[in-house]
Amino acid sequence: MNPKLQWLRNKMGSLNLQGMIISNPKNIKYLTNIDAEGILLIKRKENIYITDGRYIEHVHSILTINDEIIVYDSNDVSTDDNENFFMFCENVGFEENFITYATYKEYMRKYKIHNFVETEYIIEKQRMIKDEEELHAINRACNITDECFSYMLQFIKPGMTEKEIAYEIEEYYRHMADGIAFDPIVASGENTSKPHAVPTDRKIEEVDIITIDMGCKVNGYCSDMTRTIFVGKVPDAVKPIYDLVLTNQKQVLDEYRDGASVRHLSKIVEINFKMRGHALIHSLGHGLGLDIHEPPYISHKSDALLRENMVVTDEPGIYIPGKFGVRIEDTIQITKFGCIKLTNSEKNYIII
Amino acid sequence: MNPKLQWLRNKMGSLNLQGMIISNPKNIKYLTNIDAEGILLIKRKENIYITDGRYIEHVHSILTINDEIIVYDSNDVSTDDNENFFMFCENVGFEENFITYATYKEYMRKYKIHNFVETEYIIEKQRMIKDEEELHAINRACNITDECFSYMLQFIKPGMTEKEIAYEIEEYYRHMADGIAFDPIVASGENTSKPHAVPTDRKIEEVDIITIDMGCKVNGYCSDMTRTIFVGKVPDAVKPIYDLVLTNQKQVLDEYRDGASVRHLSKIVEINFKMRGHALIHSLGHGLGLDIHEPPYISHKSDALLRENMVVTDEPGIYIPGKFGVRIEDTIQITKFGCIKLTNSEKNYIII
Repeated sequence: MNPKLQWLRNKMGSLNLQGMIISNPKNIKYLTNIDAEGILLIKRKENIYITDGRYIEHVHSILTINDEIIVYDSNDVSTDDNENFFMFCENVGFEENFITYATYKEYMRKYKIHNFVETEYIIEKQRMIKDEEELHAINRACNITDECFSYMLQFIKPGMTEKEIAYEIEEYYRHMADGIAFDPIVASGENTSKPHAVPTDRKIEEVDIITIDMGCKVNGYCSDMTRTIFVGKVPDAVKPIYDLVLTNQKQVLDEYRDGASVRHLSKIVEINFKMRGHALIHSLGHGLGLDIHEPPYISHKSDALLRENMVVTDEPGIYIPGKFGVRIEDTIQITKFGCIKLTNSEKNYIII
Repeated sequence: MNPKLQWLRNKMGSLNLQGMIISNPKNIKYLTNIDAEGILLIKRKENIYITDGRYIEHVHSILTINDEIIVYDSNDVSTDDNENFFMFCENVGFEENFITYATYKEYMRKYKIHNFVETEYIIEKQRMIKDEEELHAINRACNITDECFSYMLQFIKPGMTEKEIAYEIEEYYRHMADGIAFDPIVASGENTSKPHAVPTDRKIEEVDIITIDMGCKVNGYCSDMTRTIFVGKVPDAVKPIYDLVLTNQKQVLDEYRDGASVRHLSKIVEINFKMRGHALIHSLGHGLGLDIHEPPYISHKSDALLRENMVVTDEPGIYIPGKFGVRIEDTIQITKFGCIKLTNSEKNYIII
């Protein structure tokens, strides 16, 4: 059996679960590499993936004998089959944050489950620690993001709209990676003051500020990087803010290591910003992997400690309403004694 | 109060619901025109929309005084507020097909709900019948789809890949409409034999067959059209299949009217196909509106009758595994004594 499924079976043992129904497609991809529509049933002695006719061939092309997963076409599963799947299971786990209430009731009925147990993100928590193959995919996605950023510095010209720039990023990722990890943010002028800006028809001016937040996917794994760049020159009013954000972004990198408290890290930046009259209005960062946002969240609200081979962002930002904003973000791999920066684009003033 | 909210309140009265929590964003858009992230609470005397800081301004710009909706920032809602919302409600409805089991439990706890009642798609069922404004948006989306198809007939050339063609459709819709209603299907050669083909890097040949399934959105409302076209010439082997599909597609149009049984319609095509040795392997059609696939489903499994101002597709197809397939689809508005074809692109052999 593959090591991730073996891990899950051990975990289920410790929770006294004899069966589990996995519905979150990202968790199924994580455990089996299957990217299709279906559900994964972990039974006492077997692993079963139920999908429909459209995906059978594709799923078989992904699985190897080592995965020990039996694939069913949902049309071939009888009422008896369903009732037998979990027949000798006292407790069966399910993903309460993923299935609808209606599906919950359907599973209860269809599988005749004795005791259906909420599993509280057990797989998502395990996904926080990346293995070699996952790190390789994320690293590749980060490299492509650096390359895309270099390309965009040549591409962007005054007169283009934010939408046109965002679109070019999408096109780049479509060709060079497995597409975007999220809709790129391209915000210019006073739009940079909105942390979640959506690209508009605003045209880049001869002297301007642009925040670009972008990431792609490689084999399902995401990258995430933000740079705030300048057209023509860096306005004097922006310099101290930019410097403050960048200093803090770098300081966090010095602190990122196995064992670091995310609350503590977040507090450091909050205090540094507050001393200069600014606030940290969003999280300092987040985990990423198969999802663009996943635990751990780097926030003063979290008790989490960083662990070796977590992959997280470091993205402080300051936003002056109606004027401008600055955010600088890298994707970072946590190591035993420090961290590895996976995105490596220039962070000093970039003027195009 | 706007007529759709008034309808819902009447419906709730007939179901003895004193309150309802609406979570499906398409249903919220339908009832209020709000397109944001949040939930709509229908209380005894008030309608409340709870969103977060990012959307407050946008939501206020959409609503008018006539909507009678009070907007809350979720950060400003206290535990007491939550407990008061449904205080005098015996029965509160929820969307069991939309909220997760975890959210269900959270609502129960947060709102101290006495009796939480499954509402079995009441709003989705109402959405089947379109009003003037909805029909206008769908009609506009269909017109743009016809225009896009004309444009694509000029654009497509041998040597292009399916992906390049799909991409051009997306770009067209991005400029001329509110984007795509679904990822366009562009399948060529033997790929046309897959009803749900995903565009590949296969290049269009000098003599080829191409199935294009495409649709866009206007103010949230979808269009959907499929044509199977030819490059160079129509192969002799394809002609009888094309003719059979087209004849049936047109025959269905003759039958579409208020009161028609979708099972009966589906059976007609199934029998016609079977007599010639072919099968109807997917539904004959589906409703569309805010969702690209919504009830009614035109299938032999459904008891539904068509009703005036439903909007549905008519899309028979025949697929010869490993060889080729033909599908022809229009978006149709049902009227009292017949139907109106909303997509009007050429359906006789198109050779480019």
